[in-house]
Amino acid sequence: MPKHRIIYFNARGRAEPSRLVLSAAGVEFEDIRFTSEEWETEKATGKYHFGQLPCMETDGVMLSQSRAIARYLANEYGFAGRTNLEKAKVDIVMDTCEDLLQGMIKIHFEKDDAKKAELTTQYDKKVATTLASLEKMLTDNNGGDGFLVGDGVSLADLSFYSQMEYNLSSPILSSPNLLDSYPKLKALNARVAALPNIAAWLEKRPKTEF
Amino acid sequence: MPKHRIIYFNARGRAEPSRLVLSAAGVEFEDIRFTSEEWETEKATGKYHFGQLPCMETDGVMLSQSRAIARYLANEYGFAGRTNLEKAKVDIVMDTCEDLLQGMIKIHFEKDDAKKAELTTQYDKKVATTLASLEKMLTDNNGGDGFLVGDGVSLADLSFYSQMEYNLSSPILSSPNLLDSYPKLKALNARVAALPNIAAWLEKRPKTEF
Repeated sequence: MPKHRIIYFNARGRAEPSRLVLSAAGVEFEDIRFTSEEWETEKATGKYHFGQLPCMETDGVMLSQSRAIARYLANEYGFAGRTNLEKAKVDIVMDTCEDLLQGMIKIHFEKDDAKKAELTTQYDKKVATTLASLEKMLTDNNGGDGFLVGDGVSLADLSFYSQMEYNLSSPILSSPNLLDSYPKLKALNARVAALPNIAAWLEKRPKTEF
Repeated sequence: MPKHRIIYFNARGRAEPSRLVLSAAGVEFEDIRFTSEEWETEKATGKYHFGQLPCMETDGVMLSQSRAIARYLANEYGFAGRTNLEKAKVDIVMDTCEDLLQGMIKIHFEKDDAKKAELTTQYDKKVATTLASLEKMLTDNNGGDGFLVGDGVSLADLSFYSQMEYNLSSPILSSPNLLDSYPKLKALNARVAALPNIAAWLEKRPKTEF
C-alpha cells in the first residue's frame, strides 16, 4: 500500500476531509503539520506543487488543491460514489461545504465592523438555505437515515462533518444548536462521528482551534 | 442520448467549461440563459438545486455547482482523465483556474481604489506563479506539445482555455500578452481553440462581455 503524506499546517482546515477519508478507509498516513515559519522555508525549496498547502505526496508524486486530493483518495478507497451521478452528488456537497467555509473566512478577515455584521447576516441566510437543501437531499436518499449519497458513507458525509465542526464550534461563528432544525442532518453528523475508524481519528488527532 | 439543459445567465462565467466539454464531445445541449429578472422568478419556484446557478438538468435530474457539473460531463464523455491520478491532475487544473477567477472577481467588486491596487498586485503575482506551475506541468507531460493531462484534450485544457479568455481580454483585467512568457501554454491555448468542435462552438456561441 502506498504511503500518503498529508502536508498542511497544524489545523483541520482544508486538509481535514482528506485525513477523514484516509481514517475512514483505515489507511495509515503521515500527518505533517508545518508551522508558518517552517512553511516559508519549505516553500522556498520549490518542491511543493503550485507552491501552496495542503499538498499530498505519495511515492514521490505531489498533488495540490484540497478537494482534488480528497477526491483522489475517495476514488482510491471507495468513498467517491459508484456512478458518475453519485460522484457528482458527492462533489456538489463538497463544493457546497467549501462555499460555507469561504463565507466564514471572509467574515473572519473583514476588519470593518459594519461590513462584518452585513456579511454575517448574508452568511446566516446562506447557511439556512444550504442546510435546508442538504436536509432534503439526505431525506430524498432512502428516507434520510443513511448517508447523503448512495448506500454508505462517502466524501460527501465527511466533508459535511468537517464543515459542521466549524459552524457548530469555531471561534469565528459558533452556533452549537445550528443543526437542531435539521434533524436528519443532526443524526447524520452523529452517525459519522460514531463510525469506529472516524471515532478513533477524532480521539487521536491533534486538538486545534481551526 | 440524454438531453442536457445548461442553465445559467447570458455569460461565459462558471457555465462555460461545461459548455466546452459538451461541445468538444459533439453533444447537442440546450443553452438556457436567464436575465437577472427571469432568474428571480425562476429561483422562487424552488426547482433549482440549492437555489443557485449554474444548474444542469438532464432527464429531470438537477445538478448544481459548476465544477461538479463540468466533471460529471467530463466523466460521461471521456474528458476527465483515465486513471485516478489523471483525474486528480485534471481537478487540480480546474480548481487552480477557479482560484484565478475568484481573485479577479474580488478585484472587480472592490470599491476602495487603494485596496483594489493592492489586490491587483497580489493577483499579478498569483497569476505568474500559477502560469509558471502550469507551464511546467504541461512540459512535464511528454514535452508539452500535447495537452495538460494524459494523451488528449481534457477538462483541464478546457478549464484553462476558459479562464484565459478572462485573463487575456476581460473588462476587469486585460493582459493580451500574458501568455507570451509561457510559450507551451500559449500554443496549448491555440491548439484548444483550433479543435474543430471547439472552433465551431466559439464561432456559434452568443458573444458576451463576461
